[in-house]
Amino acid sequence: MALEIIQQHKVHGGTLSYVRHASQATGTPMRFSVFIPGEAKGPHPYAIWLSGLTCTEDNFTTKAGAYGHAAQAGLAIVAPDTSPRGEGVADDPAYDLGQGAGFYVDATQPPWAPHFSMETYVTADLLSAVEDGFPLDPARRGIFGHSMGGHGALTLALRHPELFRTVSAFAPIASPTRCPWGRKAFAAYLGPNETAWAEHDAVLLIAQGRARGRSILVDQGGADNFLAEQLKPDLLEAAAKEGGADLTLRMQDGYDHSYFFISSFIGDHVAWHAARL
Amino acid sequence: MALEIIQQHKVHGGTLSYVRHASQATGTPMRFSVFIPGEAKGPHPYAIWLSGLTCTEDNFTTKAGAYGHAAQAGLAIVAPDTSPRGEGVADDPAYDLGQGAGFYVDATQPPWAPHFSMETYVTADLLSAVEDGFPLDPARRGIFGHSMGGHGALTLALRHPELFRTVSAFAPIASPTRCPWGRKAFAAYLGPNETAWAEHDAVLLIAQGRARGRSILVDQGGADNFLAEQLKPDLLEAAAKEGGADLTLRMQDGYDHSYFFISSFIGDHVAWHAARL
Repeated sequence: MALEIIQQHKVHGGTLSYVRHASQATGTPMRFSVFIPGEAKGPHPYAIWLSGLTCTEDNFTTKAGAYGHAAQAGLAIVAPDTSPRGEGVADDPAYDLGQGAGFYVDATQPPWAPHFSMETYVTADLLSAVEDGFPLDPARRGIFGHSMGGHGALTLALRHPELFRTVSAFAPIASPTRCPWGRKAFAAYLGPNETAWAEHDAVLLIAQGRARGRSILVDQGGADNFLAEQLKPDLLEAAAKEGGADLTLRMQDGYDHSYFFISSFIGDHVAWHAARL
Repeated sequence: MALEIIQQHKVHGGTLSYVRHASQATGTPMRFSVFIPGEAKGPHPYAIWLSGLTCTEDNFTTKAGAYGHAAQAGLAIVAPDTSPRGEGVADDPAYDLGQGAGFYVDATQPPWAPHFSMETYVTADLLSAVEDGFPLDPARRGIFGHSMGGHGALTLALRHPELFRTVSAFAPIASPTRCPWGRKAFAAYLGPNETAWAEHDAVLLIAQGRARGRSILVDQGGADNFLAEQLKPDLLEAAAKEGGADLTLRMQDGYDHSYFFISSFIGDHVAWHAARL
């Protein structure tokens, strides 16, 4: 699986590359960015960042202000696109379904099933691509994300505990089976049988004890427009109590859902992952 | 001159506002962003950031990663758009002339003269708008910028020394009378008589002694594609010797012309202004 480096920039003493590669899981070219800190030779501990609805690999990369912190902590960061894209790929005019809205599941339903396999993309093709192409340590791998990507980070970490040692999230869609964004996407990608949905709902997985003993850091803006209807961090807190997860949920007064919120606390998350990897 | 707040975000404990207001200088609505640090009541020292070709008020605001540093230093930052815009405003299909390319001069030539008065906009309308609307200290005001905006910061600081106590730049167009970007823009905005151009060329102003005794910080990426043809920091260095300016020119090996370069050193510039304001 050849990697094509599209752009490369020096930033905070390290190297940021935008990369394109072919994915078997999605059957399309996929893009990601990867930041490698500058000084040591590696292999470096690293974290995968999963973005939210409408995002590409570029949003986190240009807006999060993460790389100064990552350089200091010696942490590499990989940020993939949020879905397969292209002319032969199914899409929907709404911002919350189809291209830009992959929801980090493997779709089983038409017209999505042929390309929308974002769980397999992230957990297989992406990991092997970045670890083949860059000096990254597979034994020190974490995952984090925002909104839809916060859902992705939590569920992929809990469904694949052998792959991700650390997990954190910003404003995650905590329980997609119980909010409009998640119900719409899961109905489209996974079909009407809600039993199949439960395996992709962080709150339900945590309540079952699938995060028992694991530490999870979550930041949530108190002025986030999507808080009550879509995100529901209170369900996460209740599930953590029920299922024995070590959840640190920080409500950040006055912060909204934007990258301005993320940039304000990304340093804490980078340090948190680096300390545990 | 009423200010209309279009968007507001909490970031790094402070408040970032996107603002629209009517400018007499340009005869159009203009936009800027303003970051006010969170803790103290003010009035705060502040710096105006001038952006480069093709930019709006949004590029610095979302990509520079400046506000964490600004919050720490207690510095407010104002980032205006780079030109007047709109349907009744002259434009050119090229990226380096017209809308998005105001060059921080007052145009005297058709079709630009009616709206392209960016020097007066920044030094009069913008200052009074932000100082009326926000807790900013007019006695502690600096200016900095990138590329075309580095040219703007240097020339406006030298032409209006009573307005700006501190000045720094990233990859400035050091001598617009001697590079293609500058010659094209000055010919269009100021006309064929090059005598009128000299007053807007930082190298010529500095060589004349207009920066005598002033401290100037400039960062320049060594891998910047525009270095030799458009930016010419060597001319800046020679002029500083000739004209007695206290120039610190830092060549940053491997860095390019992008916001990844800016974000890597913006903390140094914020601290530099804050220490002197």
